[in-house]
Amino acid sequence: MSLVIIGTIAYDAIETPFGKTDKIVGGAATFAGLAAAYLYDRVKLIGVVGEDFGEDNLGILRSKGIDLHGVQVKQGEKSFFWSGKYHNDMNSRDTLVTELNVLADFDPVVPDSYQDCEYLLLGNLTPQVQLTTLDRLQRKPRLVVLDTMNFWMDIALDDLLRVLKRVDVLTINDAEARQLSGEYSLVKAAEKILELGPRYLIIKKGEHGALLFGDDRVFAAPALPLAEVYDPTGAGDAFAGGFVGYLARVGTVNFNNMKNAVIFGSALASFCVEKFGTERLRELDNELINQRISRFTELSKFEI
Amino acid sequence: MSLVIIGTIAYDAIETPFGKTDKIVGGAATFAGLAAAYLYDRVKLIGVVGEDFGEDNLGILRSKGIDLHGVQVKQGEKSFFWSGKYHNDMNSRDTLVTELNVLADFDPVVPDSYQDCEYLLLGNLTPQVQLTTLDRLQRKPRLVVLDTMNFWMDIALDDLLRVLKRVDVLTINDAEARQLSGEYSLVKAAEKILELGPRYLIIKKGEHGALLFGDDRVFAAPALPLAEVYDPTGAGDAFAGGFVGYLARVGTVNFNNMKNAVIFGSALASFCVEKFGTERLRELDNELINQRISRFTELSKFEI
Repeated sequence: MSLVIIGTIAYDAIETPFGKTDKIVGGAATFAGLAAAYLYDRVKLIGVVGEDFGEDNLGILRSKGIDLHGVQVKQGEKSFFWSGKYHNDMNSRDTLVTELNVLADFDPVVPDSYQDCEYLLLGNLTPQVQLTTLDRLQRKPRLVVLDTMNFWMDIALDDLLRVLKRVDVLTINDAEARQLSGEYSLVKAAEKILELGPRYLIIKKGEHGALLFGDDRVFAAPALPLAEVYDPTGAGDAFAGGFVGYLARVGTVNFNNMKNAVIFGSALASFCVEKFGTERLRELDNELINQRISRFTELSKFEI
Repeated sequence: MSLVIIGTIAYDAIETPFGKTDKIVGGAATFAGLAAAYLYDRVKLIGVVGEDFGEDNLGILRSKGIDLHGVQVKQGEKSFFWSGKYHNDMNSRDTLVTELNVLADFDPVVPDSYQDCEYLLLGNLTPQVQLTTLDRLQRKPRLVVLDTMNFWMDIALDDLLRVLKRVDVLTINDAEARQLSGEYSLVKAAEKILELGPRYLIIKKGEHGALLFGDDRVFAAPALPLAEVYDPTGAGDAFAGGFVGYLARVGTVNFNNMKNAVIFGSALASFCVEKFGTERLRELDNELINQRISRFTELSKFEI
């Protein structure tokens, strides 16, 4: 039994009001994998990097016990590179550079040792690659979680709709939920999106928390109020990784466990934004995570 | 012992994507009074209306057991009138008409029978009138709650800062918290605002719920996800009324009761937006309110 995560493994260069980085390790699978690995010990990644990525960078993932047999290293090629600049409100950003490099013709390999996949996170990536990954798994996983973004709604909507029919949970942000459904009300947006395939929908609202819809129920998770957000990059991926990592750990998928998984996802995301890139996600431990979970409980608990 | 509420009692004309009204009953004290009266039975209003307001409109408040001895009716004058149009997202609006009328020289009268005031809500109104009301109470109330808005920050900041020094709780929205503090982060904004006087701060975030700061703690209340918001007018006032009405009912002010009060305020606000003006707030009962409170519990409860 394992949790398989597919997504980008990349270099990022980030500018926020708090500073600027050179090329640092990033990518959806990186953030999601690091988050998940704190909660579950059989995390396996699928991805592709160039020769420039370096063993030390892969070592960041390996040191957390993450299986990288599904990660291809393309000799003579360069890793996916993204550069962006966040505005003062940290809720919007400009993409400065996108170099697809190895991602341009990424053909995902699913090693035999990954065929025990019970939990699958299709991290943010071309919907076509997400479909191929699903096709190459011999057995349908117990739970398939899809994370995607507006970019794919703009340029590959048909493929994305095909993926949606094959997943159990979709995680997107509020603007994306509105774009995908054509509805402004998130309640109506959720109704429409749940008709597209997934049984559960999580709408991520950044500093306003997250909403979980499904089984005719709704759960509202708060976000931790933070004095500073240093770098939002990867927060959504860390959320998805924490979410599916928790479900893999408890091993039972129901609404109550989903609620807790949303809290774990929110907790991992709240760490992620405290430093640049993966820095904060690399230095966590169980005690820090449990303390953070307690803060979420304190934050939202009331008894009437 | 009583709960005294001062604020506007007015006519509104409202346009939203769902429709348009003629002059209907509105005003901060009206919405707050109606909300509070469901939770506490000794609610007393201070305000002023013109001859045009009519006994039937005052009857809306009287029928809920609200004491109107502090409401002046100015013969030969007209009531305060506000007209506004909400945009499609319901989060922003244009003011079309503001006619101060009786409000222009409002001199608040505090009847002797109001001197038993233990809980005071200074509803949205000129800070100078809020100050005068405080001055005319012979005894400091147990709890003073202030609701205000960006308009007074723009044109009467000094007076507003004077009021702030004399209140226990401030309720404003997130944009107003940012304006008042000059801080984008709501955590930093709260720190600064709590230094201005109030012991507790509630930041209302509309569809994203509310944050309560104070006693070195934070509480995040969700908003009820609604398929439609028909008319947001008065939601903030209904929140404030429900909040202070609950505290008056339980009679003890501490952080845990404050949390519950935020949930009651949120519940009353969630009803308010379901129909135009005061329509929905006029037809509630204990059972409906308790059912709504249960939905808030369901919405945010998790057990890890």
